[in-house]
Amino acid sequence: MVRAGIIGSTGYAGAELVRLLTAHPETEIVWYGSRSYIEQPFAKIYGNMFRLVGDVCRDDNMEALAEEADVIFTATPQGLCASLVTEDILRKVKIVDLSADFRLKDVKVYEKWYGLEHRAPQYLPEAVYGLCELNREQIRSARIVANPGCYTTCSILSAWPLIKEGLIDPDTLIIDAKSGTSGAGRGAKTANLFCEVNENIKAYGVATHRHTPEIEEQLSGAAGREVTVSFTPHLVPMNRGILVTAYASLTDKGITEEQVRTAYEKYYGTETFIRLLDPGVCAETRWVEGSNYVDIGFRVDPRTGRVIIMAALDNLVKGAAGQAVQNMNLLFGLDEAEGLRMPPLFP
Amino acid sequence: MVRAGIIGSTGYAGAELVRLLTAHPETEIVWYGSRSYIEQPFAKIYGNMFRLVGDVCRDDNMEALAEEADVIFTATPQGLCASLVTEDILRKVKIVDLSADFRLKDVKVYEKWYGLEHRAPQYLPEAVYGLCELNREQIRSARIVANPGCYTTCSILSAWPLIKEGLIDPDTLIIDAKSGTSGAGRGAKTANLFCEVNENIKAYGVATHRHTPEIEEQLSGAAGREVTVSFTPHLVPMNRGILVTAYASLTDKGITEEQVRTAYEKYYGTETFIRLLDPGVCAETRWVEGSNYVDIGFRVDPRTGRVIIMAALDNLVKGAAGQAVQNMNLLFGLDEAEGLRMPPLFP
Amino acid sequence: MVRAGIIGSTGYAGAELVRLLTAHPETEIVWYGSRSYIEQPFAKIYGNMFRLVGDVCRDDNMEALAEEADVIFTATPQGLCASLVTEDILRKVKIVDLSADFRLKDVKVYEKWYGLEHRAPQYLPEAVYGLCELNREQIRSARIVANPGCYTTCSILSAWPLIKEGLIDPDTLIIDAKSGTSGAGRGAKTANLFCEVNENIKAYGVATHRHTPEIEEQLSGAAGREVTVSFTPHLVPMNRGILVTAYASLTDKGITEEQVRTAYEKYYGTETFIRLLDPGVCAETRWVEGSNYVDIGFRVDPRTGRVIIMAALDNLVKGAAGQAVQNMNLLFGLDEAEGLRMPPLFP
Amino acid sequence: MVRAGIIGSTGYAGAELVRLLTAHPETEIVWYGSRSYIEQPFAKIYGNMFRLVGDVCRDDNMEALAEEADVIFTATPQGLCASLVTEDILRKVKIVDLSADFRLKDVKVYEKWYGLEHRAPQYLPEAVYGLCELNREQIRSARIVANPGCYTTCSILSAWPLIKEGLIDPDTLIIDAKSGTSGAGRGAKTANLFCEVNENIKAYGVATHRHTPEIEEQLSGAAGREVTVSFTPHLVPMNRGILVTAYASLTDKGITEEQVRTAYEKYYGTETFIRLLDPGVCAETRWVEGSNYVDIGFRVDPRTGRVIIMAALDNLVKGAAGQAVQNMNLLFGLDEAEGLRMPPLFP
Repeated sequence: MVRAGIIGSTGYAGAELVRLLTAHPETEIVWYGSRSYIEQPFAKIYGNMFRLVGDVCRDDNMEALAEEADVIFTATPQGLCASLVTEDILRKVKIVDLSADFRLKDVKVYEKWYGLEHRAPQYLPEAVYGLCELNREQIRSARIVANPGCYTTCSILSAWPLIKEGLIDPDTLIIDAKSGTSGAGRGAKTANLFCEVNENIKAYGVATHRHTPEIEEQLSGAAGREVTVSFTPHLVPMNRGILVTAYASLTDKGITEEQVRTAYEKYYGTETFIRLLDPGVCAETRWVEGSNYVDIGFRVDPRTGRVIIMAALDNLVKGAAGQAVQNMNLLFGLDEAEGLRMPPLFP
Repeated sequence: MVRAGIIGSTGYAGAELVRLLTAHPETEIVWYGSRSYIEQPFAKIYGNMFRLVGDVCRDDNMEALAEEADVIFTATPQGLCASLVTEDILRKVKIVDLSADFRLKDVKVYEKWYGLEHRAPQYLPEAVYGLCELNREQIRSARIVANPGCYTTCSILSAWPLIKEGLIDPDTLIIDAKSGTSGAGRGAKTANLFCEVNENIKAYGVATHRHTPEIEEQLSGAAGREVTVSFTPHLVPMNRGILVTAYASLTDKGITEEQVRTAYEKYYGTETFIRLLDPGVCAETRWVEGSNYVDIGFRVDPRTGRVIIMAALDNLVKGAAGQAVQNMNLLFGLDEAEGLRMPPLFP
Repeated sequence: MVRAGIIGSTGYAGAELVRLLTAHPETEIVWYGSRSYIEQPFAKIYGNMFRLVGDVCRDDNMEALAEEADVIFTATPQGLCASLVTEDILRKVKIVDLSADFRLKDVKVYEKWYGLEHRAPQYLPEAVYGLCELNREQIRSARIVANPGCYTTCSILSAWPLIKEGLIDPDTLIIDAKSGTSGAGRGAKTANLFCEVNENIKAYGVATHRHTPEIEEQLSGAAGREVTVSFTPHLVPMNRGILVTAYASLTDKGITEEQVRTAYEKYYGTETFIRLLDPGVCAETRWVEGSNYVDIGFRVDPRTGRVIIMAALDNLVKGAAGQAVQNMNLLFGLDEAEGLRMPPLFP
Repeated sequence: MVRAGIIGSTGYAGAELVRLLTAHPETEIVWYGSRSYIEQPFAKIYGNMFRLVGDVCRDDNMEALAEEADVIFTATPQGLCASLVTEDILRKVKIVDLSADFRLKDVKVYEKWYGLEHRAPQYLPEAVYGLCELNREQIRSARIVANPGCYTTCSILSAWPLIKEGLIDPDTLIIDAKSGTSGAGRGAKTANLFCEVNENIKAYGVATHRHTPEIEEQLSGAAGREVTVSFTPHLVPMNRGILVTAYASLTDKGITEEQVRTAYEKYYGTETFIRLLDPGVCAETRWVEGSNYVDIGFRVDPRTGRVIIMAALDNLVKGAAGQAVQNMNLLFGLDEAEGLRMPPLFP
């Protein structure tokens, strides 16, 4: 049994980790970290776990936790994981960090977009970007896995094969993303009240959202050169789900739907959690809810010479906790899909 | 492996059976019945099952199905199951009927409330009412299990112990129930369009809803005499979930919360799927979504001499497909909770 | 032109007052009070009023406001209005208080249910309960109008004629109420976040909600004796709307739907804002959204000897700001319906 | 008083016309056309108009209607208006057609995108495209006004000034649009059921949506040459509202936010119903709900050399019925804003 500790277990991503790990046959949770609810029963805060979790929440003490666990998940705001991690801790446990602290290789880019000083830049070189489908082998032997952001997982997986295969011009890439509200977290903010979100759609963080450099860094890797993209997130009145609609000019007007399909199949053909949809089918968030799948569909538009890619995932599963479990499975030599095979829930 | 066939697999309850049985380790689905989508891939209609279910839908042929299956689930409108079942079929398979055909013992009550002639009244005596927590032993050896309705499961479980123990006057029982919209089915009706349901709440079937006699028959069993109740269902703008708020006068003004709790514990204390909530906690549908749990809370109001009971379940799981699987597990000697242990999904 | 000042203009009820008064032909708003947003443009907080309201918000200074206004609306938490009002102020302006401070005649009942010391009990005798349909004449000459609560308006209007006419036994009255989330206010609380409210229904304040004594006081007036009722509010995932489903035993089993209808017509037959629905029609919140209407429907159930009453209103209009404007119209001798004739918005 | 007839009064756009015209001081509705509900009271179908509209619905007889009305609104599927209009009718009444029949000047483009033979192409030259802010003068003297589509109104108004002023390259224009579900109409389709739309977002009609040529025709007018754009609509789980997020490359990387703002002010500076938002403010559908406003915001992104434009309107008001009333006001020499001054409703 892998002993898991969660720092930040009472946020939405942390609680989703609890849901997944509780049902995982090879794991037990040994630490429910939550600075806000110390000594309170976890199941009092998340009533869905009533009678399934008996533990109380504990403070964010990574050193103490490292003594009791094999893996630590940090589902906390940026900056916390980097401020806590030490060589001593890394000798004892693996870390899967759901925050942004170890996602960007260039510390200056991190400090510019996040407005924070990085407290552990010495670990940036060894940290592995935990997008399992792209970095599976490096993840297996990592000490720190930087679990990707929700928007970024969906955005990168959408465009990666087409850039890698030279089918689209990366500089024309425009990513219009739509997210359910659980992505905004459980903090008590007026902007996230029911009556403010319901019956509304809005863009936010236009041209300035922090997931932009993360997308650019990974897609630059596919392009073999620096890539700049437009990324616009939107808030949608639903609980879960991210839909990415991405637009890019084909490098050749004659490129066909078949060629695009072949590129996706080349990279994702054997992937368990990426479902390449049938021709003409658009991705919809309802078909992935509660599951670790990413659904990808696309359409070539000969009128404009563009491809329109649509991808959907559950932001709390493949966009956060599910991917973290997938990374944990890789780190401990388990079946990569263990604990993640639940079919999507609809309606 | 139990071979299962589903007649009516493309309604919401049928599709939920597919979701649950696909993940059930001891079952395989051998027949996806759907009169509306014959020869079409099931996963084209329910995109969540893309790549998880490869089969196409087949017609509602119970005789042919009886040759291939060990158990048949009928998730169809009233009247169909009764019109298809024969002695020959019952010799070959078990039937779990999710419609109302075998729920009421008195054929006249059925025909009055449903406005249908019953086509197989000869099986009413042997059919077992499939509320597992109350009729566990009879279910094990049944040939036909009448799977209870969603409202009724929630209503009966709420009131049963208090009536049985004589704590409330059953004739004062008023059940105000609220349901998510999946309970209204997948038929294309104007009244169930998004814009008609969203931003609205309404009662319907006031004083005439067909679940009333089913509730009354079961609670009469607890009371040891005929009981008449008020039952009012409401439609709520959410996908899943039923909340019952039930009111009844205590038989003695001095009855305490402790006594009420003791009564619930006597009947449900060891039940896997009934969670008696802590004192003061109100049941909420969000805490049971996607799971087979029923959450029950209550409050004694000394000002009025009434108890207010609140119970929540997922209408598609414990209120339909989950309970059907629980019944199947009993019928085939499996662990009663097999395939039903997934924690609720929140948010 | 009536000059109106609003203390608490940036809560949902206050902002609804702004919407209604801006469109009212006989009123101008001279003071946008908001302790939280002093010096900030109102239209920055409520973007719907962009270009329609140019003013900035001001502090809650009732004395200064009394110099500039003819009427003051207080849309603030309990206790504030009572703590600010003085004889000097009342000599200059009329007050329509949307809080509970002047709703209950018995100061002990107020202090018990609200847990607050009442700071101005000397005004309780003269304050008029502002349910226009019942107290129209007294309101015209009042100095302080206690604007009723949202649940209470809906509950009292539902039951009043039937109690007054002796058709129902008031002690059997059970009010099961369902409210949209704007009723919970705009405070930043975790419980009111989108993901906590969406896809959920729950009861709250069971047997203890503060609107209970207000309902009881008014219905006791109709009964001519003290009445105790069960009142249970629920939170529904929608923005606006209250639905009351009320149950009561008929005083005589032979009472017909016709008799019940006659009772409603006797009291509401000429009311502009009460719509008695056609036989068999259930009230729905969608049909009153954005308007000042209360829709009332009912059903006599001969099986149980009960009447089930269903009533719907918009909690921010007839349940708060609309009723406050209706009261203002009465106070200033304007047409009672002025500024309130907009048809409901659907969908 | 302008006498108005509505063909198709029981669809969502038709019913919104009823709501607006009922409150319009210079209009009376003389004909509630509805093929589906002939002889039924309009208020039975739209309960919000109970006691406000007493008429029953009538068949779609444009000739008879032309005898009784001054203006006919057709809120019907494409093809119907073109099949009914005659010279005789046009001599008697003005027509505001909310369908697509007279929006495209080129009959071949119409027939290609709509797959219909045009039954009255002889009127295409004289029909005026009813986007009031752009074609105000021609509308005043038109006989047939082609009321624009909801997506197109929002899309065209967003981009028009920037193309006209040469600030953006129209061939790079990508319009990612999101709509509430009332835009899908009131037809009873499975895809529009509550449970199918709720908790989901999806694109549809990708690269093939019929509003595309309408957008292109108008923007080609601004560009002075033929323009091809990418347009992708999405379905959002809310009742009302369209949000357009549009992306285009600036013609010069040095173009500033100030220059963009100046362009918008040049064309919209005095418009009643276009609100150019303050710098940095993103358009949101909640701020325009129930009103005739279009809110426009934008952001220049120097990193990518693009402008991101965000515009929001209520698809049933400015995107359909409100704009139709605005056109009627122009046709009959009334104040253009008459009956359209209601502030947006929030929440």
